[in-house]
Amino acid sequence: MKLLKEKVINEGIVLSDQVLKVDSFLNHQMDPILMKEVGREFVRRFEGEDINRVLTIESSGIAPGIMTALELEAPLIFARKQKSLTLRDDIFVEKVYSFTKQESNEITVAKKFMKPGDRVLIIDDFLANGEAAFGLARIVEQAGAEVVGIGIVIEKAFQPGGRLLQEKGYRVESLVRIASLENGQVTFADEEDGI
Amino acid sequence: MKLLKEKVINEGIVLSDQVLKVDSFLNHQMDPILMKEVGREFVRRFEGEDINRVLTIESSGIAPGIMTALELEAPLIFARKQKSLTLRDDIFVEKVYSFTKQESNEITVAKKFMKPGDRVLIIDDFLANGEAAFGLARIVEQAGAEVVGIGIVIEKAFQPGGRLLQEKGYRVESLVRIASLENGQVTFADEEDGI
Repeated sequence: MKLLKEKVINEGIVLSDQVLKVDSFLNHQMDPILMKEVGREFVRRFEGEDINRVLTIESSGIAPGIMTALELEAPLIFARKQKSLTLRDDIFVEKVYSFTKQESNEITVAKKFMKPGDRVLIIDDFLANGEAAFGLARIVEQAGAEVVGIGIVIEKAFQPGGRLLQEKGYRVESLVRIASLENGQVTFADEEDGI
Repeated sequence: MKLLKEKVINEGIVLSDQVLKVDSFLNHQMDPILMKEVGREFVRRFEGEDINRVLTIESSGIAPGIMTALELEAPLIFARKQKSLTLRDDIFVEKVYSFTKQESNEITVAKKFMKPGDRVLIIDDFLANGEAAFGLARIVEQAGAEVVGIGIVIEKAFQPGGRLLQEKGYRVESLVRIASLENGQVTFADEEDGI
C-alpha cells in the first residue's frame, strides 16, 4: 500500500534492528485519512468473504479496526488486555505473551459478542511474533466462529508471526511487509506495489 | 443526539444507580456507523473553532476520537495510560484518579505532538467525575496549547464532572446527558432533541 509505505519511509523511526517507531501516524498520533484508506484496503483484500464481525485488540488496533468495520458496516469488537483476571463465565479469555514487554496479559471478549456462525476478520496494527493474532484467533474459535483472515497494518516479516499463522492455515494480509531494519534502514519485503 | 439516545435506551444496561453498561456499542463492541455520526456531531457543535488536533485517551475514546479527527481532517492523539512511569523529558505526564477502579494512572502524551498555538478538541466516551478530562486539559496546557472544548459521548450529569469543567471555563458538549439511573431506569437530563 503506497500511502502507508511513504508514511513508513518519511515518518518511521528505526530504533534498533528489531524496533520501528511509528507513533506519528499509527501508535500514538494517528492519521485519520490514512486509517480510512487502511480500512478500505482491508475490505478490498477480503472482498466476497461475507464478514460480519471485526475483532481487534486495544489500543492501537482500534483505529484501523473501526475504519474497516465502517467500510463493512459490521460491528467492531476490541479485546481487552488485563494483567490478571477473576474467572468469569461470561467472557472468553486467552493468555498472550508480549516479547516486547516480556509479560503475559489475559485478553478477553464478552461471549455475547461472538457466536457460532460468525465470520470474523481480525485486524491489528503490528505483526511480529504473532502472539496477539493467535490469541484473537483462539478466542474466535472458542466461540465456534470462523476466522476469515487476519489483516495487519505493518508486518515485521523478519519475525516469525506471519509464517506461523499461515502454517496454521490462516490467511494473512499485511498492508506493508518489512524485510529488515538493519543499519537503521527500512527494507520492504515486497516492492511490487511500487512507491 | 437521537440515534445515541435510542442506543442507550435499547442497549444500555443499568447495573446500579451509578453504572450504565454500554458495551454493545461504545466500550467493547462498537457500532462504526454510530461512531461516524458521533464524530460528525462533535464537528458540527464545534464548527468555526479552527481545531487542528484531537486528543483522547485509550481505549474507548479512540473510536469517537478518530471519527471526529477524520471529519476535521486533523490528527488524533491518544494519551496512554500507565500504572507507573520512569521519568522522561520527551513526554507530558499527568496523574489521573479513577473513582470506578479506585486507582491512579499516569497519562502521557509525547511532547512532539502538542505545541504552543495548537487548538485542541478533547474527546472522551464518558464523563463522570471529570478526572480524565481534567488530566487531558492539563496536558494541553502544559504544552502551551489551547483547549477549544471537550466533547463527550455520554455524560452522567448526576456526577460533578461536567459542572466542575464548566466552572473552570471549559466548553463541554455532551451528546447525551443522563440525569439519573435510579430504579434501573435511564432518565435523560435534556429532552430537547426529542426521541
